[in-house]
Amino acid sequence: MKIVIGQVNPIIGNFEYNFKLIQDAYKKGLEVNADLVVLPEMVVTGYPPKDLLERDNFCKRAFKYNELIVDLTKDIPILFGSIQENDKVGRKIYNVGILAKNRKIIGCARKILLPYYDVFDETRYFEPGDSPFFINIANKNILITICEDLWGLGKEGYLYGKNPIKDALCKNKDKQKIDLAINISASPYHYMKFNQRKEIFSNITKEFKFDLLYVNCVGANDELIFDGASFFMTSMGELRYLASFFEEDISYLDTDIISFESHSLNENFDVTELMYKALVFGLKEYGKKTNFNGAVLGLSGGIDSSLTACIACDAFGSDNVMGLIMNSPYNSKESLEDALELSKNLNIRSVIIPIEPLMKSYDESLADIFKGYKKDVTEENLQARIRGNLLMAVSNKFGKLLLSTGNKSEMAVGYTTLYGDLAGGLAVISDVYKEDVYKIARWINSKKKVIPERVFIKKPSAELRPGQYDQEKLPPYEILDKILKLFIEEAKSINEIISYGFDRNTVTEVVSMVIKNEYKRRQAPPTLKVTGKAFGYGRRYPIAMRPKLEDI
Amino acid sequence: MKIVIGQVNPIIGNFEYNFKLIQDAYKKGLEVNADLVVLPEMVVTGYPPKDLLERDNFCKRAFKYNELIVDLTKDIPILFGSIQENDKVGRKIYNVGILAKNRKIIGCARKILLPYYDVFDETRYFEPGDSPFFINIANKNILITICEDLWGLGKEGYLYGKNPIKDALCKNKDKQKIDLAINISASPYHYMKFNQRKEIFSNITKEFKFDLLYVNCVGANDELIFDGASFFMTSMGELRYLASFFEEDISYLDTDIISFESHSLNENFDVTELMYKALVFGLKEYGKKTNFNGAVLGLSGGIDSSLTACIACDAFGSDNVMGLIMNSPYNSKESLEDALELSKNLNIRSVIIPIEPLMKSYDESLADIFKGYKKDVTEENLQARIRGNLLMAVSNKFGKLLLSTGNKSEMAVGYTTLYGDLAGGLAVISDVYKEDVYKIARWINSKKKVIPERVFIKKPSAELRPGQYDQEKLPPYEILDKILKLFIEEAKSINEIISYGFDRNTVTEVVSMVIKNEYKRRQAPPTLKVTGKAFGYGRRYPIAMRPKLEDI
Repeated sequence: MKIVIGQVNPIIGNFEYNFKLIQDAYKKGLEVNADLVVLPEMVVTGYPPKDLLERDNFCKRAFKYNELIVDLTKDIPILFGSIQENDKVGRKIYNVGILAKNRKIIGCARKILLPYYDVFDETRYFEPGDSPFFINIANKNILITICEDLWGLGKEGYLYGKNPIKDALCKNKDKQKIDLAINISASPYHYMKFNQRKEIFSNITKEFKFDLLYVNCVGANDELIFDGASFFMTSMGELRYLASFFEEDISYLDTDIISFESHSLNENFDVTELMYKALVFGLKEYGKKTNFNGAVLGLSGGIDSSLTACIACDAFGSDNVMGLIMNSPYNSKESLEDALELSKNLNIRSVIIPIEPLMKSYDESLADIFKGYKKDVTEENLQARIRGNLLMAVSNKFGKLLLSTGNKSEMAVGYTTLYGDLAGGLAVISDVYKEDVYKIARWINSKKKVIPERVFIKKPSAELRPGQYDQEKLPPYEILDKILKLFIEEAKSINEIISYGFDRNTVTEVVSMVIKNEYKRRQAPPTLKVTGKAFGYGRRYPIAMRPKLEDI
Repeated sequence: MKIVIGQVNPIIGNFEYNFKLIQDAYKKGLEVNADLVVLPEMVVTGYPPKDLLERDNFCKRAFKYNELIVDLTKDIPILFGSIQENDKVGRKIYNVGILAKNRKIIGCARKILLPYYDVFDETRYFEPGDSPFFINIANKNILITICEDLWGLGKEGYLYGKNPIKDALCKNKDKQKIDLAINISASPYHYMKFNQRKEIFSNITKEFKFDLLYVNCVGANDELIFDGASFFMTSMGELRYLASFFEEDISYLDTDIISFESHSLNENFDVTELMYKALVFGLKEYGKKTNFNGAVLGLSGGIDSSLTACIACDAFGSDNVMGLIMNSPYNSKESLEDALELSKNLNIRSVIIPIEPLMKSYDESLADIFKGYKKDVTEENLQARIRGNLLMAVSNKFGKLLLSTGNKSEMAVGYTTLYGDLAGGLAVISDVYKEDVYKIARWINSKKKVIPERVFIKKPSAELRPGQYDQEKLPPYEILDKILKLFIEEAKSINEIISYGFDRNTVTEVVSMVIKNEYKRRQAPPTLKVTGKAFGYGRRYPIAMRPKLEDI
């Protein structure tokens, strides 16, 4: 069976642009005389359009574009993701795969399993379908599924009270052979996600004995990075075709002879490299979709801002990246040197702006009102906020996207200043744990030595007062990160975490900090999601709460 | 039938505290020898606990407290809201009303209709129940429902694909008489919400011919304000008992003789007054639950900060409120005078901190990097951010909650500066349209003249440069607010809004500003929700999108 896979990068809400992507993929299908052209889930609207879907006009415009796409079709069928009206009670729309040819809709697969966890809000918008959609194309019995529908055939099925596709397949198992399952997806990347897909889908194809064509979109929207990596897998669970990661890829595949048009199958990629590429791609896409073609960031000479600068250069090009080195009397000479060396190595323009005059100016302005009070965290926060203001001024003046450089470990325990280092349009690495920051930075340096060696070995410090180091109040990062992962990603309780061998006081203190700092994260910039549980949209905690720590 | 209504104010996640509230209500039931004690939806956990519900330990602790409550009971039954384990596939828990007496559970009403729109995420957490729960108590046939279950008997029913309670009642209508429906709720306030409840429930009681006991919680959690206002309504749709607004109220009611223990029924309240009370209560509760007993805010001499100051004084007491008057060379003498007069009238401590020295200091620090560039919005934003920094410094030093003072109209069109006037722990009036800001301020002055008259009549201005007025670039607020309401609350398209008689260019410009400024709102402080559609948790729009304006 000859298939054109349209692994495209739609823009949310831009129907006209997305229509052209679909049109191009279909043209390719006509050129090669394919049996089928397949495009990802909700390619017409982009994913996720969120509450735009609550707007009647937006939905109507999507329906209109569905018609325009159907009107394109000749004798070769196209399968594309979109939304469809529900004219009965319930949610107003379905999430569908529309199959069309010769200017007519042949059929529609309605998404049945609607993910409701983490970043997904699909039950907010969509009425679920109630039965699987089968179709015969090119003499193959094909089951068409949308994203979660397929996952639900594996162990994810327990998440759903009803599972009509699994029910149908289990009943049908020995009666009617399904040759091919097609899954159209808008499935976001996180660390090891591809490996997870491969494993789960491999089990499913073997259990249900069908080949699988998996067509994912590519792109990045706010927090979410869509990695593409569409593939074809045999009913033996073997990968036979793999499209690009983080790139549009409209490609042609003959499932019978598995002829690769332009790809060699390379599954042996480095997961660290992949995370780096995800971050670069996520930033680039965010810039593109919010009309920024350059970035500015503060360079402290620390590992976080060094990594972020590398990402920025790969996303926008060195010429479009600007660094501010905003040293205070508490910054070491080494920090300044390291920031300058990094700038030189990356070939970016860096400007030094000492903040001491501004610190003094604030001290003077606040002298009366603070009379009789000692210096405390207030003055430390002020330094961070002076830097935030300078960075935003440069961002405003030159139209550059300000990148916030905090990592996930800091974000978790609140070692970050609201409106200070948290200021920015995008928090590039705030879903990357400190240990992974080092790991990725090492990987970068293994390709080309850009980050000064000293940055790796010096003790992490915010340098907001003399002799301040992160580990004064925090456990070492290799312990902190493990506790955080257990608490945030695996949702373990304090007692459970302690049972893994951690110290009770340390665990309690860490959890307490995470809970107390919810208010900072609520006002943080969007975070590029690269783990299974990022702060932000997919993790919704109250601020006004007072749980006992042992109850959470 | 003798009922104790426990309109209590639980704290999210604080099981021990909430348990005591329930215990007190039950004690009252024992004292008066009631037939039933009723507490609100999810009183055990507080509402909404959001993703705390994804934590196994949190759920287990809630189940444990369910047992403790059941263990309290003697011969008088108690109905209380909580969560219950689902041991089958699907979501892990149900949202339930547990009915218990003599240390045993008599039955459980599982919430069937799970709201999924606006601020509600119930399909994220709960498996729906599948059938209505009936029980006989004190010789009355009682239907027990949880919040949305009752709304679903009215026109809200169309939101749900399945509606088992309505189906059961419609089938049963002439066969079995239901004497009383009890509804336990965690239903947030917004403008006219009580009127809406009264109207909808009045239609329902008349249609289905049952009396209705409506028990709501009170309190405020992040954005949401729960107004209480529990009531008893006859099957003729007449209100016969009304508990307090915005106050805990454990009260006793005999539905047969409708004896009011301490309340006289007053339905004639002013909706403006109610909104003001909601804002005061929302702020007070936010302070209480985040450990702040005082506030600081910037006083500009404008209407927004004046109103916010009044709210702060009523929430925390004048002694605990502090004003900063941060005048620049662009602020008029009148603004300074008005801010001082307001401070005097409210009896709050206000401190004048001129920001000119800081403006100069920033200009100097940025002189090199900005060489050759003209002054623009950058320098205006800097003024706002200098004020933000000073306010945060005072907040940090004195442990006072910083209140952001922007209104909804400004938030909508982006007339606000990130990390500047948007800085704060809570955005008190950012769900109040400018016109309503004036209306509430007028109402305040009608009680006691605290806001200088000049504040009402001067042209709104951010005073960030000479001669700047809001209406330079914006239509007059009476037009702007109407367009915004149609676009935001009613989700109308540009063409629909124009069809109401507004100018095409104006509408297009306003909608464009709303769409473009999504990124600012993403980093805004939590907003007290007082309209049907507030920015924040209940309105989820992408930032990285590029819709054509006519498509939304």
